[in-house]
Amino acid sequence: MGGTVMPSAHFYVRNHFAVPNLDAAAWRLRVGGLVKRPLALGLEDLVNLPSRIETVTLECAGNGRAFLMPSVGGEQWGLGAVSTAEWTGTPLAGILDRAGVATGAREVVFKGADEEEGRRFERSLTIEDLRSSDVMLAYAMNGELLAPHHGYPLRVIVPGWYGVASVKWLTEIDVIGHSFSGCFQTEKYVYEFERDGRVAKEPVRHQRVRALITQPGPDQIIDVGALAIRGFAWSGAAPIAKVEVSLNGHAWEKARLVGEASRHSWRRWELTTRVDRPGRITARARATDQSGRTQPEEQVWNRQGYGNNAIQDVAFIARRR
Amino acid sequence: MGGTVMPSAHFYVRNHFAVPNLDAAAWRLRVGGLVKRPLALGLEDLVNLPSRIETVTLECAGNGRAFLMPSVGGEQWGLGAVSTAEWTGTPLAGILDRAGVATGAREVVFKGADEEEGRRFERSLTIEDLRSSDVMLAYAMNGELLAPHHGYPLRVIVPGWYGVASVKWLTEIDVIGHSFSGCFQTEKYVYEFERDGRVAKEPVRHQRVRALITQPGPDQIIDVGALAIRGFAWSGAAPIAKVEVSLNGHAWEKARLVGEASRHSWRRWELTTRVDRPGRITARARATDQSGRTQPEEQVWNRQGYGNNAIQDVAFIARRR
Repeated sequence: MGGTVMPSAHFYVRNHFAVPNLDAAAWRLRVGGLVKRPLALGLEDLVNLPSRIETVTLECAGNGRAFLMPSVGGEQWGLGAVSTAEWTGTPLAGILDRAGVATGAREVVFKGADEEEGRRFERSLTIEDLRSSDVMLAYAMNGELLAPHHGYPLRVIVPGWYGVASVKWLTEIDVIGHSFSGCFQTEKYVYEFERDGRVAKEPVRHQRVRALITQPGPDQIIDVGALAIRGFAWSGAAPIAKVEVSLNGHAWEKARLVGEASRHSWRRWELTTRVDRPGRITARARATDQSGRTQPEEQVWNRQGYGNNAIQDVAFIARRR
Repeated sequence: MGGTVMPSAHFYVRNHFAVPNLDAAAWRLRVGGLVKRPLALGLEDLVNLPSRIETVTLECAGNGRAFLMPSVGGEQWGLGAVSTAEWTGTPLAGILDRAGVATGAREVVFKGADEEEGRRFERSLTIEDLRSSDVMLAYAMNGELLAPHHGYPLRVIVPGWYGVASVKWLTEIDVIGHSFSGCFQTEKYVYEFERDGRVAKEPVRHQRVRALITQPGPDQIIDVGALAIRGFAWSGAAPIAKVEVSLNGHAWEKARLVGEASRHSWRRWELTTRVDRPGRITARARATDQSGRTQPEEQVWNRQGYGNNAIQDVAFIARRR
């Protein structure tokens, strides 16, 4: 019902291993590897550093996977695996400055406390990626300490990237001099498709441009008369430039962007229109970002079903009051 | 712990009468009086109008009243009667355009469903006040329908004004051709003080400029070393220009404003400093807005204890780790 930020209780949850049970008093963030001054910081240390507050949309790369044809394995997400929250934390850049990145550093590996059969959840970003993304280490979400299933006590937030980059339960930052080859970025979270008869692979990175219709809902019964069609739109690579809506296959109409624009948050949009006759109506919404990227009519299939941003259909029913 | 928006469950509650039990299906907003086309709108009608989303800070005019000397009657608020939420609704201007304000209109009276002994909770704004304040009729708070104690199904939101103007459980908007004299703006919510030996009266309107310290808390024990002092600052009349902090009576130091500025929301601020010796520390914070208004050292007393924005003291204790 309306807002930009979602109550924490409704924020989507996707974890790879079981939620670790961390003792915040004993917990430390260790920063090591190719650094001049290795660090071990407690939660209080982090809270006493300069802070940042930012509204950030996170989307699971598998959001929309359930609609792929032919179907693929993995969590069968419909369209609920995207959420927006206000995060509070400290910029990663400040931590790395404190540790002093040594020459020869190429990537930064983030290690979560979650593990299974001796394998930890780990992801890396290159030094170059870090320069172009405002990565923060977040200890609060919507004004409260993180809940255990959202990464308590500390979660990496990589704005604009698919959620897998935002490692939860962070305990270690390791600066390395080579390319990291952890399975969550070389085997999983990779677009795999055929190109010229060969399997091509590309890592999952920024969220693809996308609009969702949230109102009316699928098969909702609405009254003939004034109607607002609403939803969210986001793109990891650039701010949203426009959202267009088409009803029953008619020409695209430009929707209005609502609320304040915020660089890393989805944007509310709405089209206020009229429905004059009872019957079934199909609405489609298409977002375009400021770099000109827009949504495909149909998703290009990839083996693991990531990054589905095909234009969504919502059908609802108008009746007389 | 950090954010700008507060979880709805922590938002302050100050009602004058009991929470009315409204049936949303039967509920209507009636717009009448000096209008060309009287209206009766259901919640669905309002939701189908163009929407607005805005983060707005509401403060009770009695916030801080408990600190006044000599003490005064009324709810003995400490400093908790101020909160910020993201509100979604429809601009009042659009509703009034639809109804068509007739010539001779001077004020708009907002009537809540809450009543006691036949007396309803009612407040007015002049047509001129409406031109300078972005009044909205809100049906959602932090992305969910309003809770009953926050005004379900509809609450007026008057950004920048003390909370009493933001009438809950709105059922009627009455456009009138005279000055409204309801007791909640002629008897209560009036600054009363002596001037030249006579009692002067001024209505409570915009929130006075103010900074609160939220971290560390009163009597909190902190470790010697790095320390962040944080809080919020707001002013109904103009955006916050600066916040300064003084420790143990030393010179004012300029704090950093954190997060994105939003016209009607409080602003986060912080001062990162060091505490080198154990002992008791008293912190004071002073806000100044862009129109040059700042906070007094001591509150000018008024009979009902409204608008106390005197500079706040917080004392805490540093110890060695």
